[in-house]
Amino acid sequence: MPALSLQPIQARIAESTLSRGTQFAQIADFHRWLAKTAEHAYMNVDRIALDRLIGWNHDGMTGNIGHQSGKFFTVEGLKVSFPESPVADWTQPIINQPEVGILGILVKEFDGVLHCLMQAKNEPGNHNGLQLSPTVQATRSNYTRVHQGRPVPYLDYFRDTSRHGVIADVRQSEQGSWFYQKRNRNMVVEVTEDVELLDGFCWLTLGQVHELLTVPDLMNMDARTVLSCMPFSGAGLARTFTPNVGDGFGTSLIRSCDPAEGALHHTDDILSWITEMRSRVDVHAERTPLNGLRRWHHADGKISHETGRFFDVIGVSVEAGGREVGGWTQPMIEPVGTGIIAFLVKQIDGVLHALVHARVEPGYADVVELAPTVQCTPENYDHLPAEARPPFLDEVLGASPDRIRFDTVLSEEGGRFFSARNRYLIIETDGDPGLGRPDFRWVAAHQLGELLRHSYYLNVQARSLSACLHSLSTTRTTLLAQR
Amino acid sequence: MPALSLQPIQARIAESTLSRGTQFAQIADFHRWLAKTAEHAYMNVDRIALDRLIGWNHDGMTGNIGHQSGKFFTVEGLKVSFPESPVADWTQPIINQPEVGILGILVKEFDGVLHCLMQAKNEPGNHNGLQLSPTVQATRSNYTRVHQGRPVPYLDYFRDTSRHGVIADVRQSEQGSWFYQKRNRNMVVEVTEDVELLDGFCWLTLGQVHELLTVPDLMNMDARTVLSCMPFSGAGLARTFTPNVGDGFGTSLIRSCDPAEGALHHTDDILSWITEMRSRVDVHAERTPLNGLRRWHHADGKISHETGRFFDVIGVSVEAGGREVGGWTQPMIEPVGTGIIAFLVKQIDGVLHALVHARVEPGYADVVELAPTVQCTPENYDHLPAEARPPFLDEVLGASPDRIRFDTVLSEEGGRFFSARNRYLIIETDGDPGLGRPDFRWVAAHQLGELLRHSYYLNVQARSLSACLHSLSTTRTTLLAQR
Repeated sequence: MPALSLQPIQARIAESTLSRGTQFAQIADFHRWLAKTAEHAYMNVDRIALDRLIGWNHDGMTGNIGHQSGKFFTVEGLKVSFPESPVADWTQPIINQPEVGILGILVKEFDGVLHCLMQAKNEPGNHNGLQLSPTVQATRSNYTRVHQGRPVPYLDYFRDTSRHGVIADVRQSEQGSWFYQKRNRNMVVEVTEDVELLDGFCWLTLGQVHELLTVPDLMNMDARTVLSCMPFSGAGLARTFTPNVGDGFGTSLIRSCDPAEGALHHTDDILSWITEMRSRVDVHAERTPLNGLRRWHHADGKISHETGRFFDVIGVSVEAGGREVGGWTQPMIEPVGTGIIAFLVKQIDGVLHALVHARVEPGYADVVELAPTVQCTPENYDHLPAEARPPFLDEVLGASPDRIRFDTVLSEEGGRFFSARNRYLIIETDGDPGLGRPDFRWVAAHQLGELLRHSYYLNVQARSLSACLHSLSTTRTTLLAQR
Repeated sequence: MPALSLQPIQARIAESTLSRGTQFAQIADFHRWLAKTAEHAYMNVDRIALDRLIGWNHDGMTGNIGHQSGKFFTVEGLKVSFPESPVADWTQPIINQPEVGILGILVKEFDGVLHCLMQAKNEPGNHNGLQLSPTVQATRSNYTRVHQGRPVPYLDYFRDTSRHGVIADVRQSEQGSWFYQKRNRNMVVEVTEDVELLDGFCWLTLGQVHELLTVPDLMNMDARTVLSCMPFSGAGLARTFTPNVGDGFGTSLIRSCDPAEGALHHTDDILSWITEMRSRVDVHAERTPLNGLRRWHHADGKISHETGRFFDVIGVSVEAGGREVGGWTQPMIEPVGTGIIAFLVKQIDGVLHALVHARVEPGYADVVELAPTVQCTPENYDHLPAEARPPFLDEVLGASPDRIRFDTVLSEEGGRFFSARNRYLIIETDGDPGLGRPDFRWVAAHQLGELLRHSYYLNVQARSLSACLHSLSTTRTTLLAQR
């Protein structure tokens, strides 16, 4: 049955999720390496007033904040009309970064097992210093060298892939509440040639990456989104790999990654539902001058909402060692509070499904993307009526410990967001909480994988959680390859 | 081998392409019906000066032309920067129609064979009166009744699909040179219940639709784009249906619709190539006031380019019988000249492939869409140097008659475009004209079908040609179902 045999790349990915690494035999070895790397990394970040940024100008007419080179990004205003939502219209600051950057993980086989080249990288927004990033995270300004820095290591593998194997290559959105139509290119590229291992980089198997996803604030957002685009799902997976020890949950997760095991809804019906949601929702967002926002005020060197909620636009001054340039200043977004990002998951006919939400964010390129079941900062809803409280939030926060399959605080992109942290949760449920809600659907992991081959279906939070979900195949089961 | 068995819907679609109709046993019966329908349809269209439009205002500040209701569409300016192109930057008028409309074909089985409910419809831009349109072509303004007209027949089948079968449902772009980020929802919905046949509507098999695609200016653009989104391709198709009579071309076309027959490039490589093109191209388009365009002038009641090339924005006054409202005026785009829209196709290992072009148009939502091999109005290039002449245009225009597989002049959307006509061509070639051109790729029909499940991969011209390509399975071969 040729069509049911596992594709080679999916088999090799599954193999890597089962394997210890070559560079670090034990995960403790990795942590020692990270601690040692941290000794040589240095970054000092100070808050400064927005009007003390160097090289950044406030446009005289609009108040928009932009770099004098015209590159990097601008902070502008956005005017949103969304009649069906609890707040029918609002204005807000937003980051406009039209450049498409590259987020790339280089992979290579050692002893027949795929390893990912990860970088221990400091970013001004990281509250804890080094986090693990993809091999490359480069904006176009980075690699066209607008900031006169050193060349980005390993970038050429991603700029010219003709001699290499491309495992994933897809443009994806980022936070639609903070970015205006931001998109990055997510790439996984395989090389067979020798690769020099530079300081601050290390080779990890997917099994090790999965284990490290459970460490708070370690695997950064860019790493998570690229990981989510790897083709984990494949027809025949459930037959080829069987959980050895582990509960029914592990088995249902492996089956969920296998299209041959089916799903509650046909993928065409999921696509039609997305089309319906995108067509029905009436939302308009347009850029507007930063100095004309209602209820946002520029005071004390930052821009804040009059209630103190949502986020502030702040300035930072950065001094770094071991990075492209030694020092710079920049605006950043500092969110208020720690968010909750959660999937409710459920075994349906023995196949694990996640409850996804067709969510509107004003910065999306196409109205709606699929989001986690819950994605919010609870405090932002305190002042709104109970009906406005996000659905399923109480179910997530009140879950009994034995239903919590994943629970780790992880950071968002440290180059633009200052200390932006979310608690990522995967909660198993038996009920049918999505029943009768037209903006929620149960989907299997292989359907998420199919959607992730294309742009703008899963938002960045759902992609992060999807990576966390896959990590459970390593951390909650021991798989037995039957070959 | 379950994964290789033909899916039921693809089998029924293939069956319909082989079948004569129930309502019209012969195609001559259809033409008699159309002629009779035309006797009862009446539409008189006069050109009028733009400033004589009734209910449309010219904004005092920008000169943008909009309807006083704030609905329908506006004519604005667009400022484009595209450094790599022969003309590095320009401004132009553009239609901004943010509303998502519905283009829907209702299908139903008669005597076990799928039939499409098509409408003989007059549009002000049709140079020849009635053309065949989908069951429904409705803007949101249409169906929310902004213009106080009669309800749109059959619309409810598409607004609430819960009781029906959804065969296709995807948002697609339209002309990116004339529309700013226009998107319509393309739907095919199957009903089993009785459907009243209203005046001006008829039931046609896909075989009949295919035959009528060869009639000049008959199958309208909206019908073609919806047809292209039907799932013609299916694994096992080549085994189940074999051309009975016909040449190798017919066989290679059927094999091209069958994913099991393979293709020159893996679909993941095609997706990566699209990602690469979308990431690499440096193009910026932003809306700008209509009265500030360079080299475009408002004179003699219309807006024209100073060279007389490209298109004019004109006004029309319409009087209609048998339509939603009796009379109205509106602005329209009138292109200069008849365009050439062509696929070069080639048998590669017995599987037909089409040469697609990764094309930039300023109105696209995501930079690049896949276009026909050639898509241009030759006169627009007369003033440019020879290097700027579209690739493969001479090969298409000089093709010997025995290599021309399809050659019909068809009209573009008659609700916005006045007498916009293109010559659609499919030319078979043996050479490898795409070799070494990074912006062209050979793709099989089943790959086009896979891309058409998602938004914004194929532009409207490529979708039209894709429908024409499928029509050749009816008109150039007689298929033998082996079941």
